[in-house]
This record gives sequence, C-alpha cells and structure tokens, in this order.
Amino acid sequence: MDQQAIEAIVAEVVSRLNGAAKNDDSIPIAVSARHCHLSQSDLEALFGEGYELTKKADLSQPGQFAANETITIVGPRGSIEKVRILGPARNMTQVEVSQTDSIKLGSKPPLRESGDIKGSAPITLVGPNGSLYKKEGLIIAQAHIHMNPDDAARFDVKNGEYVKVEVGGIRPATLGKVLIRVSPRYKLEMHVDTDEANAGFITGKTKGKLIKDEAAL
Amino acid sequence: MDQQAIEAIVAEVVSRLNGAAKNDDSIPIAVSARHCHLSQSDLEALFGEGYELTKKADLSQPGQFAANETITIVGPRGSIEKVRILGPARNMTQVEVSQTDSIKLGSKPPLRESGDIKGSAPITLVGPNGSLYKKEGLIIAQAHIHMNPDDAARFDVKNGEYVKVEVGGIRPATLGKVLIRVSPRYKLEMHVDTDEANAGFITGKTKGKLIKDEAAL
Repeated sequence: MDQQAIEAIVAEVVSRLNGAAKNDDSIPIAVSARHCHLSQSDLEALFGEGYELTKKADLSQPGQFAANETITIVGPRGSIEKVRILGPARNMTQVEVSQTDSIKLGSKPPLRESGDIKGSAPITLVGPNGSLYKKEGLIIAQAHIHMNPDDAARFDVKNGEYVKVEVGGIRPATLGKVLIRVSPRYKLEMHVDTDEANAGFITGKTKGKLIKDEAAL
Repeated sequence: MDQQAIEAIVAEVVSRLNGAAKNDDSIPIAVSARHCHLSQSDLEALFGEGYELTKKADLSQPGQFAANETITIVGPRGSIEKVRILGPARNMTQVEVSQTDSIKLGSKPPLRESGDIKGSAPITLVGPNGSLYKKEGLIIAQAHIHMNPDDAARFDVKNGEYVKVEVGGIRPATLGKVLIRVSPRYKLEMHVDTDEANAGFITGKTKGKLIKDEAAL
C-alpha cells in the first residue's frame, strides 16, 4: 500500500475513535470538482429546445443531483471539456472552477459565494446544440459549510459568519474565511474545491475541525 | 481591474507598510511549478551523449537555474508535457509534481523533502533522444523554508524543525508541517507547490508569517 492510502486509513480510524469518544463534533468535507449550474433557457440553447437534464447521481444536499450531461467551457487561453452539470436548473447560470482551472482557461474569476455572480468573470459554454458567451457567471467558489439550525447552535455559529477549519493528516492546513450557510434543509458538510483539497490532501473521507474566528467577526 | 489584481496590490501595500513598521519578519514565498532534476547520466539518456543543460534563468537560491530544456513525464493514466528541468545536474533524478498533477498522471507520489526519494513513486521520462523508466523519483515536495543561520536565530528555529506558515489575503490559509532548511548559502524563501499556492491565492508577491508549532516538536 502506498503512503497516502495508509495515511487515509489511519486518519479514518483515528477520526472514528475520536468521534466515538467525544460525540463527534467534526465536519465532514466534500470536494467539489469544477461544475456548472444552468438556467433552463441556457440549457436549451446548449442542448436543444425543451431539453431536460437526466440524473446520474444524487448529491449529498437534498434535491441536488449530478447530471449525465457535460459541457465544454472556454476562456481566452484554453478550454476544459466534460464539465459536469449539476441539477436541477437554476435561475442563473453559474460555472465554478478552481484557480488551477482558471489559469488553464486564462480567466480571472473572483472568489465568491455560490449565487453571487454579479460582475464575475465571462465564460463561453459549448454544448452539442450550440454555444453561449456569458458576460458573467464564472467564479471560484468560497469554501463553506452547509448546516442546519441545530448544528449551528451546537457549533455556536450563525448564517453568514466566517470560521476557520483545521484539517490534519500528513499535509495539515487550516482554511480561513470559510462561510457558514444555515438552512433547515442542509446536511452538515463542508465544501472545498480541488485546489484546497489537493493542498491539504483532503479526500471524501477527511473531516475538519471548526474554529471560531474572532478576527473575522 | 479584477478583484484578484486589486487584492494583490492591497496586500503588497499592506505588506510593505507592515515591513517598514516592524523590521519585516515576514517570509517571501515562491511558487514551485512542477519540475525535475536529472542526474548527468539520465540527462544524456534523454538528450544525447555529452549533453549539457543550457541556462534559461537563474533561480533565487544561489547556483540553481531553470534550463531551457523540458521533458515529458508519463504515468499510468496520463502525461504532462514541457516539464522544466532545473540545473545543475544532481546525483539523483527527482521529479516534483503537485497532487493535481499526480491525479492526471494516475500516480501516487509521497509527500517528501527534496532529495528523499527512496521508495517514492515510479515515473517515465521522455526526451528528444530517448525515454527512461525510473522505479522511483516522483514526489510531491513538502513545503519548506530556506534560510541562513542568522534567519534561523532570528525566527528561533532549527534545521529540520516543522513550523506553520500563515498567509493572509482574500483566501487566507495556514500551512502546517512546513520544514525549516538552514544553510549559509540559502536565501530566506518559502517554497510551496502550485496546489498550495492556488488554495491560498499565493503569488510570487505573497508573504507568509512563521508560527512556531509546539505540537510538531
């Protein structure tokens, strides 16, 4: 077995033992690869009139799913193929990439909370039925934690608050400016992008420790 | 101007003002893109008998340089072209990639200090004159800080010690297990890879703050 596999197993064992011992106040972490959300009209422009997304897999947040459909995204310097579409369709089209991706695209997307795309970077979308130039919609998603009100009470945090999250392992890191997002329909989960994941050797089994950030209040 | 450019300027201004105010105990950070060091015999196998590297640019550490020559590296899943060779030739061939790169290659390199390649991951190197299968030599370089003995005394750290380094800005992060490397010929500089850089929006102008890590002693 390689070092990373051994370390992952050790981290998981330690995490479970710790969890059993102290009622588990750790935060499960999910890694978001590049993806896009499309409005119904943009979906139809790219895939054809009346097109409906088909489900490949449910995501952890209720109602959200990964579609079978993918698109190509194109920036001034390069393109990235097979960018997964997440459903269901939204009001506004939004493409979430990593900083690594943005260098490849030659784009300069801002770091934003999902949904906040005003003044964000332009991006070209290419589907089997056509292409679209979006004047804005390309962002790097800010790391955030979904939680329900009970979790928020337990961690003593509020919707919109920024916290730090510490991740252990062989490449430990603490991520700052992690946004708390509270809704009764959310399942406790931190979302990081692939750059944050790779910088901290974070996989789908990694857990984080929430740290209140007084300086960010 | 985009948000990242504005933020970079603000960070630089704040950094310079802080530096002037408190004798600047910040750590300059350099971002290491994927690269390789070759032994003279491997260089000749890839480029031809008696081949000598030609200098493209000096690097910040004295005597080190980026060569004009590049190679292609190949793993079980994919390849990466134009991987820069750093000179001068070393005793052992070593290829340093990011975790992002390793996913593309389909390889599982361990996180290692430069030079510690025993039991590391295999990699195929392709040059204009031939290719080589190296049974080991592929690593992800552990973040480290080069410094001279005067710097070490100033920061109260020793060669081989692990510290944390805090980076501010719009995507603040603290990197753990950062190795201190002391030598009279070193210039003060932290080296991170592109994953760590992109996770923290670290550019060549970013500075870090060294934090003693009692837990790592």
